[in-house]
Amino acid sequence: MAKDKKPRRPRAETPKGFRDYFGIDVTERKAMLDRIAEVYHRYGYDPLETSAVETVEALGKFLPDVDRPNEGVFAWQEEDSDWVALRYDLTAPLARVAAQFRNDLPSPYRRYAMGPVWRNEKPGPGRFRQFYQCDADTVGAASIAADAEICAMLSDALETVGIPRGDYVVRVNNRKVLNGVMEVAGVLDPADPSKFEAERGIVLRAIDKLDRLGEAGVRALLGEGRKDDSGDFTDGAKLSNAQAEVVMRFVSAKRRVKDDFTRWSARVEKNSSAKLLIASDATDRRFQHVLGKEFTSWPEYGLWNDAVVEYLNDLVAGSETGLEGVAELLEISNQLASQGYGPDRIVLDPSVVRGLGYYTGPVFEAELTFEILDEKGRPRQFGSVAGGGRYDDLVKRFTGQEVPATGVSIGVDRLLAALRAKGRAGAGMDGPVIVTVMDRDRMAEYQTMVGELRSAGIRAEVYLGNPKNFGNQLKYADKRQSPVAIIQGSDEAARGVVQIKDLVLGAKIAESASLEEWKSQPAQFEAARADLVAEVRRLLAQGEG
Amino acid sequence: MAKDKKPRRPRAETPKGFRDYFGIDVTERKAMLDRIAEVYHRYGYDPLETSAVETVEALGKFLPDVDRPNEGVFAWQEEDSDWVALRYDLTAPLARVAAQFRNDLPSPYRRYAMGPVWRNEKPGPGRFRQFYQCDADTVGAASIAADAEICAMLSDALETVGIPRGDYVVRVNNRKVLNGVMEVAGVLDPADPSKFEAERGIVLRAIDKLDRLGEAGVRALLGEGRKDDSGDFTDGAKLSNAQAEVVMRFVSAKRRVKDDFTRWSARVEKNSSAKLLIASDATDRRFQHVLGKEFTSWPEYGLWNDAVVEYLNDLVAGSETGLEGVAELLEISNQLASQGYGPDRIVLDPSVVRGLGYYTGPVFEAELTFEILDEKGRPRQFGSVAGGGRYDDLVKRFTGQEVPATGVSIGVDRLLAALRAKGRAGAGMDGPVIVTVMDRDRMAEYQTMVGELRSAGIRAEVYLGNPKNFGNQLKYADKRQSPVAIIQGSDEAARGVVQIKDLVLGAKIAESASLEEWKSQPAQFEAARADLVAEVRRLLAQGEG
Repeated sequence: MAKDKKPRRPRAETPKGFRDYFGIDVTERKAMLDRIAEVYHRYGYDPLETSAVETVEALGKFLPDVDRPNEGVFAWQEEDSDWVALRYDLTAPLARVAAQFRNDLPSPYRRYAMGPVWRNEKPGPGRFRQFYQCDADTVGAASIAADAEICAMLSDALETVGIPRGDYVVRVNNRKVLNGVMEVAGVLDPADPSKFEAERGIVLRAIDKLDRLGEAGVRALLGEGRKDDSGDFTDGAKLSNAQAEVVMRFVSAKRRVKDDFTRWSARVEKNSSAKLLIASDATDRRFQHVLGKEFTSWPEYGLWNDAVVEYLNDLVAGSETGLEGVAELLEISNQLASQGYGPDRIVLDPSVVRGLGYYTGPVFEAELTFEILDEKGRPRQFGSVAGGGRYDDLVKRFTGQEVPATGVSIGVDRLLAALRAKGRAGAGMDGPVIVTVMDRDRMAEYQTMVGELRSAGIRAEVYLGNPKNFGNQLKYADKRQSPVAIIQGSDEAARGVVQIKDLVLGAKIAESASLEEWKSQPAQFEAARADLVAEVRRLLAQGEG
Repeated sequence: MAKDKKPRRPRAETPKGFRDYFGIDVTERKAMLDRIAEVYHRYGYDPLETSAVETVEALGKFLPDVDRPNEGVFAWQEEDSDWVALRYDLTAPLARVAAQFRNDLPSPYRRYAMGPVWRNEKPGPGRFRQFYQCDADTVGAASIAADAEICAMLSDALETVGIPRGDYVVRVNNRKVLNGVMEVAGVLDPADPSKFEAERGIVLRAIDKLDRLGEAGVRALLGEGRKDDSGDFTDGAKLSNAQAEVVMRFVSAKRRVKDDFTRWSARVEKNSSAKLLIASDATDRRFQHVLGKEFTSWPEYGLWNDAVVEYLNDLVAGSETGLEGVAELLEISNQLASQGYGPDRIVLDPSVVRGLGYYTGPVFEAELTFEILDEKGRPRQFGSVAGGGRYDDLVKRFTGQEVPATGVSIGVDRLLAALRAKGRAGAGMDGPVIVTVMDRDRMAEYQTMVGELRSAGIRAEVYLGNPKNFGNQLKYADKRQSPVAIIQGSDEAARGVVQIKDLVLGAKIAESASLEEWKSQPAQFEAARADLVAEVRRLLAQGEG
């Protein structure tokens, strides 16, 4: 048989790497963002919604000699005009706005922004090319108080959406400390920052991989290089042993301070409640100031920040930048502590090295510390859900004048996933009451019923499919997760009554009941038409109870 | 002097045709959309958020032989792969989703969507290339009840956001009536719909221009053509006089029914309250059924819908499609009236011809009827803020099976502009309390103050700019529209007090007071530090009163 040659029908497919959000995915995210926006608002931040499209020039990621600058972004050329692109984050547009509207905006300018961003990256499992960010930034404030405020606000935001204290920690570090370490190790010359750039690149990437490679792996990359499990060899930074040792003291700072402190505190004389350190025969200078102070959490957080500061001060001694960074760390820690954000919430952590190149001072990261099961059923820490820091050079690109700025970006999808893992994402889907259609000619009466229910604030709808097969109507109600179905045939109408079907109870009975019980149908009852709204309201209230 | 040749700095500019939304523009739109979403939710509609990017194939606007299909949309080619584009509306993505997920979605599927869409059009004053839409649609319901529900919900949504009854009207028409008119006029052959396509195109465009050209202008375009004011000549459809007369009876339907009804009713005997038509010696069949009925609004809306139906029935007699369309009009009008949505809110109007080609049945449009002043200060009706209709063929493109669908799209920017024109867009900007910095070393205390205020639910911030110039701090507070500023120097701190400056009252005094009054500064007073929150709360409550 000859086939008809029909024009091919278009494929109904979400483009590769993109996705659609249905129902509860939209409402739960919205509820979370609304709560975060309330916190940002209370801190004095104003909303800003920039256009999704920016000129490539303003995004500033591209080399002028690249013909089509679509590396990492979705870009296209305007007719006989500029290249434009979808924004890849919310910070670059803020820098553009801060420069463009610098004469109109208040200074400092506190703003928050929530919305999708786009990345032209290879899609993969869990890796999407459009996703939400939720940022708050302060432009025009040079003081550490601005960074401290962002950290406090991030902490408040996490608790407000439902991450309880103790389940998260905001880790704080400072880029200047890292630069100081580089200086001390001899791979950064303040007089000529372009020197040793290749070495520093290798060192930074190595530090960023600490979680995955461990200290030994990082150490190998600081030296000659490292062969991975597959046999591939990665060239190292070829630092001398002395140089590598400096970097490793930084890399392992967290572990060493913890080890030292645990050892030291084991030799400390405590008072009866074990909350006051009275005396120690140990001589570690870093911990002497702890004596006589009271603390609540032992040994992880209590006084941890002070000890870290001491450790880092030793490490970067000789680098002005490094010492400035440590002083800023102490300052941010003190300011936050005096506002009640102690080390149970905000902790100094030298291992925080945010990937983005543009940070110039404090950097921070919110980590959720509770465990979830990964795809293979193994427990693992949930991990990072937000990060940010100070970036004093972004606006300068446009204006030539330095404009200090600091801010944070919350990973919306990850935080929502965390709330779901904790069962705190929301009350679940709120299915509508379904008024079924027994008799097509009486549609007006069914619509009057839903009208009454809606006027009483109850979500309700009339079945609008083909009503012939009543089973389909109940299947529909099931798919809609309806709590209640209303049935009124001509017999009921004549008697002035309706049948009310409790679908929640019905589902429970269907799961567990015998045929006899099923037949008695206690989940369905008759009510006077005039009592429709009251009876439905009563049933819904039961469901919530 | 030789100039340094520096690399050019990037321009800080929003791309042409795009814009940024600041502060109140974001919050007012959000508040409006939140209220609309509540209405949609109560009607049983679920949110859907599709990706911003669609394959060009799924959008389906383009010819296969066009090399770069960027006509009207922003499109680009994926690496060695499909052309993709930013969505230009929210309906095309819904059709794609309805086809793609047809086995998982409930049927009928009621969904709402809110978000930006993009159009690659020449930007102009008030014409932007990214704007918001807010849609609600039902996919899979063939019955007129689905269209009636959309109209009722649109009416509820408008009232919920703050357009009072009487200030808007939802006009309803039906594409089938127009097709019936075309058939009767002999420019549509049901057996061969491709015949007379060119003529119909001219007729449709002419009808769509009724507002601008008037009846005479439309008539000219139906015949030989029309010369406009500039002298340009537009070719007409070259219909015969008889053909043109049929179309003109349709074009002028609204005016004629109104004229006839006014004439007729003037000869009607009324009862004492002038609300009951008792008898008439006129013989117009269209109005006979009105006798003995009570109505409330005279003569525009009372019984208007019935009269329009009679008029159109006469007009399309002989066209099966046309009569079907009129029957659907009557049906939608009756259903809505029985739900209480009478002709004071929803009115049949043959002049509604929605532009989009894909409508197949009922079409509707929400118009705001109050007057605003245009840019030249002349009063004019606000006009259309929403429109929609039934489109039964959009999903079929993908699946080959007909899937009935109907929906509405609200023009978010226009509706928000209307709310602003009516002073109903919101309570205005809620500026933060500013705690000024008199003494940089006491930052911790200032932060404690804002912390206390925030804990009491009061929006508050500490000044984070350079605190040296106190005048700048007050200028900043002014720019932020702060209601209250807090001042505490070391003197006040020592005495355990704060200065509280009522900036709202201060601004009033500055406007009207003499220098003497100004100097007495009643807008600033001293309060005990412990009373800070209570005093600020008292001031803010006054401001609201």
